[in-house]
Amino acid sequence: MPLLVVGSVAFDCVETPTDRRDDVLGGSAVFFSYAASFFSPVRMIGAVGEDWPAEHTSMLEQKGIDTSGLQIIPGGKTFRWRGRYLPNMNDRETIEVHLNVLDEFQPKLGASHQDCRFLFLGNASPAVQLDVLKQAKNAELTVADTMDLWINIQRDELGELLQKIDGLVLNDAEAKLLAEDENLVRAGHTILGMGPKFVVIKKGEHGAMFFSEHEMYVMPAFPTEKVLDPTGAGDSFAGGMMGHLASIGRFDPQALKEALAYGTVTASFTVEDFSLDRLEKLDRSMVDQRFKEYRQMLSF
Amino acid sequence: MPLLVVGSVAFDCVETPTDRRDDVLGGSAVFFSYAASFFSPVRMIGAVGEDWPAEHTSMLEQKGIDTSGLQIIPGGKTFRWRGRYLPNMNDRETIEVHLNVLDEFQPKLGASHQDCRFLFLGNASPAVQLDVLKQAKNAELTVADTMDLWINIQRDELGELLQKIDGLVLNDAEAKLLAEDENLVRAGHTILGMGPKFVVIKKGEHGAMFFSEHEMYVMPAFPTEKVLDPTGAGDSFAGGMMGHLASIGRFDPQALKEALAYGTVTASFTVEDFSLDRLEKLDRSMVDQRFKEYRQMLSF
Repeated sequence: MPLLVVGSVAFDCVETPTDRRDDVLGGSAVFFSYAASFFSPVRMIGAVGEDWPAEHTSMLEQKGIDTSGLQIIPGGKTFRWRGRYLPNMNDRETIEVHLNVLDEFQPKLGASHQDCRFLFLGNASPAVQLDVLKQAKNAELTVADTMDLWINIQRDELGELLQKIDGLVLNDAEAKLLAEDENLVRAGHTILGMGPKFVVIKKGEHGAMFFSEHEMYVMPAFPTEKVLDPTGAGDSFAGGMMGHLASIGRFDPQALKEALAYGTVTASFTVEDFSLDRLEKLDRSMVDQRFKEYRQMLSF
Repeated sequence: MPLLVVGSVAFDCVETPTDRRDDVLGGSAVFFSYAASFFSPVRMIGAVGEDWPAEHTSMLEQKGIDTSGLQIIPGGKTFRWRGRYLPNMNDRETIEVHLNVLDEFQPKLGASHQDCRFLFLGNASPAVQLDVLKQAKNAELTVADTMDLWINIQRDELGELLQKIDGLVLNDAEAKLLAEDENLVRAGHTILGMGPKFVVIKKGEHGAMFFSEHEMYVMPAFPTEKVLDPTGAGDSFAGGMMGHLASIGRFDPQALKEALAYGTVTASFTVEDFSLDRLEKLDRSMVDQRFKEYRQMLSF
């Protein structure tokens, strides 16, 4: 079942305590799509500038990702992000952000996009996310990400969005900020009270928490000793999660729990190398093998 | 099967962002013993001063904890610790420590203590822990805790201890310090290489990690929205873990994994109130009920 993602496409500059990469492929839509492509067909909407190399498009297409919604803005430049990871490789600081083409980007859904029953709204302003939601007429499962910026400057619009989506995926710091509560268990319940049917709080190396009216659980991250670059882990998590749901065409509680596990496992590969480097060496059987190990790890 | 613990007995002064308690019962041997007592008979060795109220001894005895090894030092004062929790309720700072009777305490094992096949060495100097280990002639499973102070000032003695014990339980910051590695997965393996048969890294609200020659896994903390005081959670974890092992008289890989789950669940109660207040309202069936929920939470 095709899965639609609307999000950012970026060139990332990543610095870690021991290494760095400049101008590597990144962005929420890219990581999400690539991760989801192991599970289901993906249609991607985003904007890039004239500096976008055609090879990137081919690479995504080869993974079965429909890039017909990838708009090349004449005279524009692709979004750029530069960040630096602290020695713990979990926390990071943003050094530079150039929105470039993302500054004025208003995603337009074509007919093939409007067909999709599964929709992921990557991090964008709630106003833009609401506009996409309105266009996605056939979406049966709508899940959004957000970030601290929007919680701080567009809280009302975010509140409106939360009333209209099924699921919200956000990280621990964002959840604390949104709920104004340092306790993540309470924060999750508070956010649930803002409208969505479920909330997923991503805790980086510490895993993820799930909240719905009837359920609350925590899943640890899959432990890996090779953490080269955590960039994109959160979007890969969402991609694995939504990809699994789209592949089985269901989103009941059991499907959602399995989906969180697939998201966890997919993200654990992403951090093992820069950009998409690790995912590019992956096939579905390797994801399934790690999923099996993860399930085994948690049974006693 | 009786379980022996040698550790501290303390009066704690605990400050949280919203509350505080002065001179409440604490210490590694106290939390450990109380937690373990839900599972198996416990024999406790420790030292207190003349300021120790007899009611505390009675309370522990009523839980089936053998306090014959609790020495009252004439003219001495009980160990005191004062700490303050940060708003995240996971990190804390120590404001005051008065070792008092612990300064010169040399634990002596009586015949009933030497009989014990399961031994937990609560946090103390490695030199003292080594001396206890030598006396515990019949111990078949020996597990120790440690702290940053000893890693910094008695690394050689700690290294000797690690060659002689079966398991080491320590927190994430201590593991990073001991292994000189910010990645906990690598750190766990490095510490394993220092001698013990298994290593457990406690990550507070983020759960625990287990390392042995053949296995490595992570278990999340049991999520609770009521965190009033995390003091003693680590010792309660160790108590639940060792208590379960002593109760079944085994420490094979499956037993250890279940034991970590019991430790996790027991600690999740401790944080729900100050000192032993929550544990005092608990019975074994409530521990088992939460254990069941925890297992359910992790199955998908």
